[in-house]
Amino acid sequence: MSARPKPVDTAIDILRQRFGERLSTSAAVREQHGHDESYHGAAPPDAVLFAQSTEEVQAAVQVCAAHRVPIIAYGTGTSLEGHVAALKGGLCIDVAQMNQVVRLSVEDMDVTVQPGLTRKALNEHLKGTGLFFPIDPGADASIGGMSATRASGTNAVRYGTMRENVLGLTVVTADGRVIRTARRARKSAAGYDLTRLFVGSEGTLGVFTEVTLRLHPVPEAISSAVCSFASIKGAVDAVIQTIQTGVPIARIELADDVQMDAINRHSKLDYKVAPTLFLEFHGSEAGVKEQAETVQAIAAEHGGEGFRWALRPEERSKLWQARHDAAYANKALRAGCGLWATDVCVPISRLTDCILETKADLATSPIPAPLVGHVGDGNFHLTFVFKSEDPKEVAEVERLNERLVMRALAMGGTCTGEHGVGYGKIDFLTAEHGEAVALMRSIKLALDPHNLMNPGKIVRV
Amino acid sequence: MSARPKPVDTAIDILRQRFGERLSTSAAVREQHGHDESYHGAAPPDAVLFAQSTEEVQAAVQVCAAHRVPIIAYGTGTSLEGHVAALKGGLCIDVAQMNQVVRLSVEDMDVTVQPGLTRKALNEHLKGTGLFFPIDPGADASIGGMSATRASGTNAVRYGTMRENVLGLTVVTADGRVIRTARRARKSAAGYDLTRLFVGSEGTLGVFTEVTLRLHPVPEAISSAVCSFASIKGAVDAVIQTIQTGVPIARIELADDVQMDAINRHSKLDYKVAPTLFLEFHGSEAGVKEQAETVQAIAAEHGGEGFRWALRPEERSKLWQARHDAAYANKALRAGCGLWATDVCVPISRLTDCILETKADLATSPIPAPLVGHVGDGNFHLTFVFKSEDPKEVAEVERLNERLVMRALAMGGTCTGEHGVGYGKIDFLTAEHGEAVALMRSIKLALDPHNLMNPGKIVRV
Repeated sequence: MSARPKPVDTAIDILRQRFGERLSTSAAVREQHGHDESYHGAAPPDAVLFAQSTEEVQAAVQVCAAHRVPIIAYGTGTSLEGHVAALKGGLCIDVAQMNQVVRLSVEDMDVTVQPGLTRKALNEHLKGTGLFFPIDPGADASIGGMSATRASGTNAVRYGTMRENVLGLTVVTADGRVIRTARRARKSAAGYDLTRLFVGSEGTLGVFTEVTLRLHPVPEAISSAVCSFASIKGAVDAVIQTIQTGVPIARIELADDVQMDAINRHSKLDYKVAPTLFLEFHGSEAGVKEQAETVQAIAAEHGGEGFRWALRPEERSKLWQARHDAAYANKALRAGCGLWATDVCVPISRLTDCILETKADLATSPIPAPLVGHVGDGNFHLTFVFKSEDPKEVAEVERLNERLVMRALAMGGTCTGEHGVGYGKIDFLTAEHGEAVALMRSIKLALDPHNLMNPGKIVRV
Repeated sequence: MSARPKPVDTAIDILRQRFGERLSTSAAVREQHGHDESYHGAAPPDAVLFAQSTEEVQAAVQVCAAHRVPIIAYGTGTSLEGHVAALKGGLCIDVAQMNQVVRLSVEDMDVTVQPGLTRKALNEHLKGTGLFFPIDPGADASIGGMSATRASGTNAVRYGTMRENVLGLTVVTADGRVIRTARRARKSAAGYDLTRLFVGSEGTLGVFTEVTLRLHPVPEAISSAVCSFASIKGAVDAVIQTIQTGVPIARIELADDVQMDAINRHSKLDYKVAPTLFLEFHGSEAGVKEQAETVQAIAAEHGGEGFRWALRPEERSKLWQARHDAAYANKALRAGCGLWATDVCVPISRLTDCILETKADLATSPIPAPLVGHVGDGNFHLTFVFKSEDPKEVAEVERLNERLVMRALAMGGTCTGEHGVGYGKIDFLTAEHGEAVALMRSIKLALDPHNLMNPGKIVRV
């Protein structure tokens, strides 16, 4: 008597018949799809499907649903909390080949794209239209992945996060239906806000197959500046006053002394090793000039000095390159080390306290951890530069990270401003939301009763 | 043998013991709470509780849950789609006495209020802080009601709707738990977006007992203007170009010829009887001047003429008074008639077509229906001025309204941009969302399995 085949093997057989070589069970492909850019443990899926259309995703989900096989959607694998690890095996649906612009309306300033299109590819496509898509997490992530993790980045202070910029989604649900969460109207009061429910759901409620995004006019003028401060408090107070004054600043990024030192070393620059704000202004020629003057005056009141302006595109690129190269600079701080990036977000009135207490905590630890922040939103990152093979260092990073999160929660903040929960922060979600996690679990079970969609992420079932 | 008391009577007895005279079963109080400002059929609740705290709302919900009695939250009763009608009887929880500001942070530019506080009372409270709360539906609605219906208004084009401006909610759920949907961080990627799920849920998922709102800096300068156009298309094209140019316009409101005629008659004004834009600019002195010049030039390109500027507060008030008095002006169009206000929202590229087709449809009908619109969002309203006692006129309004909604849906729009669904538009929701309504129903049943929270609204169970 032969053993009965496992459901996942049956499903893979069916999928292989339909998809041929686009269904891979090779060890290398599975391994590559079992981890993101974090150090949370990898878990390869049983198979990877390179899907090419909504219909294909739907067909694959229907097969998986019939055989109770988990489904994990995969974009660029650049998430940071273990989002794509196949903790219970199953089928990874890689949407990288679904990378087309489906439609674009310049008049409506919106675009519908397939989920595998990356943000940089989208902006390439938009060149010459007068429009751009502003959300910029560090990585050149896919639009599907950015929607799934509610990504944001340096200019969320002006343009919002994926929450504000996704107008609607086409989703394959756990039972294999295809739904649209919203039509293209700019606003609607028609029923539950399914769009916002799916944005940030990290693949646990369905697989996105199309995303409609809000676009923004390319500003007539852009200028950038860098300014250092005598203290973190001075820098943060300057940010608070800037925002209270109503200056529509496009970017206002903080780097601490540790980060500036790393940037100087890596990029051969000579910035002062002190808390530093990187600023960017978008608007009309006159508007940008006025914003910049206002902020320069505010910065001066709070101990800002050594303003460096960058008006021409090449100067601006150079200035922001230093900020964007932070990750490389950090890697260079300790040879052979890995990077563990974490983020929290607090009410801005608590940001100085949160950063200062965090830096005091870090001062007692051997692990370097440069700090950068999207401080206009109260959001900041630490990047732990650690020996990922050394269990003692891993444990130390885990300890520091937990203390950081608990500190942010105690100040009315959140355990993650933009990286998401994945399974790296799943326990912190309960610490943050308490009873409300039970509601999240009810919603999960209502939409995915067999826990097939990216199981083990956000809420445990 | 005496008849067993009905569950609702048992619940009322228990509630009366606890709340005394704050639990009313008087016919007048019940009647008053059984309808909003629409002509959808009224349905009085069995009793009305004037609650004073989260704990009281929780206690009342627990009693109702135990006895399977429906619960309807009530703010100011200014909704427009039958939202508060107690279609299955039950307990109305009036939160008007929960009207306090709980906390205010000027640094964080946020405030937590009880749900019965009205938007005007909130702005009174904020005077002198340099901050204001921008969302302005016509009525002086409660913040709880505005959150529940995802309200917006004239300046959503700049400041967003309740969706963008509610940071978190305290909610009593159907099973009598108290949860908080979010902490105070300006952004978060921590789990499902419960805040956005509850905003716009119209009391069907829980009762709000506290609302945390985002505030905005009072602009340094404000200027307003009125400008008439030769055609609807000219006016809408001017709006599209204004927004594409990146002008951060605060208000851009359209009134059609019928509406302008009504305004002139009512307010003894002499505006040209033609499609007209009401504009408002917020910013620095120089910024407002620049915005205004840009828009004036754009308007001129599209046939705009007779610009009237209003810079001083009294002039501005007078200008906007005409717009705000539209409802009174409409009532004066036909003696003894009622107003049926409806709204749709379409992608702005379809707005001209949608308005022109609608006006052609109205031209064949005896019912006057002035048109005003938040055109920067693609959102517009008709106000049918009709004999509410005449079944033929009611049927005619229903027919025109249905044609309006179906036209908007066919153009990729929504059945309601800001009024909500209530039970007046419950059938249109299915026409709009199709399969996705099944998801909404699953969510409703997951969070309210006995269908006690405002039953019969948004989704039928």
